[in-house]
Amino acid sequence: MDIELIAVGTELLLGHTVDTNGAEIARVLGALGVRVVRRTAVADGGEEIRDAVAGALRRSGAVITTGGLGPTSDDVTREAVAELFGAPLDFDPGVWNALVQRFARLGRVPVESNRVQAQVPRGAVVLPNRWGTAPGLWLEGRPGLVVMLPGVPYEMRNLLRHEVAPRFAQRGSGRVVRSLTVRTTGIPESTLGERVADVARSAAPLTLAFLPGVEGVDLRLTAWDLPPAEADRRLRAAADLLTARTAPHAYGEDDADLAAVVLEHARARRLRIAVAESCTGGLLGGRLTDTPGSSDVFVGGVIAYANEVKVSLLGVAPELIERHGAVSGEVARAMALGAARATGAELALAVTGIAGPGGGTPAKPVGTVWLAVALGDEVEGARVLMAGSRPEVRARAAQAALFRALLRLRGVPAG
Amino acid sequence: MDIELIAVGTELLLGHTVDTNGAEIARVLGALGVRVVRRTAVADGGEEIRDAVAGALRRSGAVITTGGLGPTSDDVTREAVAELFGAPLDFDPGVWNALVQRFARLGRVPVESNRVQAQVPRGAVVLPNRWGTAPGLWLEGRPGLVVMLPGVPYEMRNLLRHEVAPRFAQRGSGRVVRSLTVRTTGIPESTLGERVADVARSAAPLTLAFLPGVEGVDLRLTAWDLPPAEADRRLRAAADLLTARTAPHAYGEDDADLAAVVLEHARARRLRIAVAESCTGGLLGGRLTDTPGSSDVFVGGVIAYANEVKVSLLGVAPELIERHGAVSGEVARAMALGAARATGAELALAVTGIAGPGGGTPAKPVGTVWLAVALGDEVEGARVLMAGSRPEVRARAAQAALFRALLRLRGVPAG
Repeated sequence: MDIELIAVGTELLLGHTVDTNGAEIARVLGALGVRVVRRTAVADGGEEIRDAVAGALRRSGAVITTGGLGPTSDDVTREAVAELFGAPLDFDPGVWNALVQRFARLGRVPVESNRVQAQVPRGAVVLPNRWGTAPGLWLEGRPGLVVMLPGVPYEMRNLLRHEVAPRFAQRGSGRVVRSLTVRTTGIPESTLGERVADVARSAAPLTLAFLPGVEGVDLRLTAWDLPPAEADRRLRAAADLLTARTAPHAYGEDDADLAAVVLEHARARRLRIAVAESCTGGLLGGRLTDTPGSSDVFVGGVIAYANEVKVSLLGVAPELIERHGAVSGEVARAMALGAARATGAELALAVTGIAGPGGGTPAKPVGTVWLAVALGDEVEGARVLMAGSRPEVRARAAQAALFRALLRLRGVPAG
Repeated sequence: MDIELIAVGTELLLGHTVDTNGAEIARVLGALGVRVVRRTAVADGGEEIRDAVAGALRRSGAVITTGGLGPTSDDVTREAVAELFGAPLDFDPGVWNALVQRFARLGRVPVESNRVQAQVPRGAVVLPNRWGTAPGLWLEGRPGLVVMLPGVPYEMRNLLRHEVAPRFAQRGSGRVVRSLTVRTTGIPESTLGERVADVARSAAPLTLAFLPGVEGVDLRLTAWDLPPAEADRRLRAAADLLTARTAPHAYGEDDADLAAVVLEHARARRLRIAVAESCTGGLLGGRLTDTPGSSDVFVGGVIAYANEVKVSLLGVAPELIERHGAVSGEVARAMALGAARATGAELALAVTGIAGPGGGTPAKPVGTVWLAVALGDEVEGARVLMAGSRPEVRARAAQAALFRALLRLRGVPAG
């Protein structure tokens, strides 16, 4: 089955917003054997939307739109598509009640303009939106199939997974496009490329893509147009080979989060985790608390941005800072031990570095980061040099600290 | 002048790659008064490309394509567009020589397949590419104007700036498309819509868009096709009106970051800032340290995820937690005062809440967040209820804490 995507939003044409919805829809539908053959972005205008949807239906017979379902006057997708289908808009009391209840839970009352969100083109199936105010709409008729989804990524994603994908799965071809990603960190792309060059060849007809980012390099295997069982079998075998070949740098698959992996290992060993952060300013704690249920392992810690806080809350000796500088192995190790002592945690991670853009010196250029991991009384430090902008250096530093902690938890000697 | 963008690449339809070229082209052309009216992504196929380019030329008369100019068999943009123009492809020795020289500088020799990159549709102007192998092509004829650019962002960007933009500037009408965004927070989209409904009308011919996100709702004004001075004057007046009408929720314009605004206000009053974070786990500190040079204002603080850390490092009385719960105004206020005391900062922000997905109760549902701001000895708390997923609740909580701090710094009474 072929389909086209139409993103509605003047902001997409002005270049102020990058559309990520389209990529997500394409991945989810591809896994179901539904092929996206064209993507279009148009302005918030009735004529533009109608023209784009009509063209897509002529070519491909099926369309998913995102955006333009909100309560304000520039939200006209619902109206434009209804007109194309010659379907009047009916006020749907069920949708309105759900919206009123949602507002009530947030201690608010809908305003008059919200009523437009309860308008439903006659003949459309309402896809309930438990994640926001605008329901999705599934409209099938003489011109073809149009699925309207909200543009807010979180709402779109949930409607896609819970309402749209199951409906397409029922119409499927039996062949799939499916991917499996092995996530690695702490190893450069070129080294990785050499280590897995033969796997890339032997995995054919699967393809292998290298996707570098601040958390490391993801290795994405893709099976194209295979029966589901064969796709899964080949992906599994190739992923296992990649993981073995890239040890100890492979830490998980697909959406695996390194912080969640660290929490899992610590939980299994009944260790509690604390942090002491200078240049990351809280990002490492942020990573460790992204995972629901982290509170049984992660206790907290100290953001020691100023040197006085390193001294007062972490007990770092002022002489240490004076002699070696705040960005040094000595201070990183003292911070980790201090965080463990202050919180009672058995495992403590410390980060101190120069995130830039200022503050670099020839001996300690921007991107210089010292990490330390204390496990009980034993503390190990490591110096790393991060590339990139200030946000990149900070994100990479948090990831590197988590990787060091994982190596300690796995008993891998520090490299 | 209107134009359409066509991105060529099967990867864009599979959803593994997000197209950032389109946004960049739209911004650069908009500043020259060229309006992008539609964006399309199609697969690497001659028919798909021809069909999309032909449709765009019919509607708008001008197109920029990106991608499909490489040396491999799936690169067919050049051929497809030439066919549409009825223009034969000629081998261009000048382009070939430039390519051979480029390879030589990299210590390489072009292969046979590179020769296709020296094919030029008859009548096309070659846009020399000093940043890669595929030159851009500017083809103007009976069907309209087609500018072909490579898809590699770095090459595209340089050709756009150095070759394409100057050519469009010359044909410019002297009119521009320009935007100005007023950023608001702590006020729902529908309420905002009612407050500024008349501004939206009176600002015409400017348009107003509502862009909701976890940091609040951005109000984007756009001037379409106006002389630059008039565009700026109208944008300024309308933005001032929006800011006045949405006070105290408007905190800045365009890329303004609320954390940076808070730092600026604190710096002006020579106040140092500390944080005490429970449910945000460090994200608030992360926000405050995103801004370069934050270290003269932000000292750090405590991530008090576990109750024991609230007690040991922030001095929160255990009875307070027992009686009111960790998510309460009493504990939030004690956390803020504790952070100020522990770090010596004059201004302290505390956050404690239920980020979900678990942990909610009827009295304190998921999304319940208590914020407190201590300024000197005076501490004020506020309860807010956040919608969305765990990451959204956390991001919104950090933003809400910053907003409370800004209100205190501005002397606005807590609402």
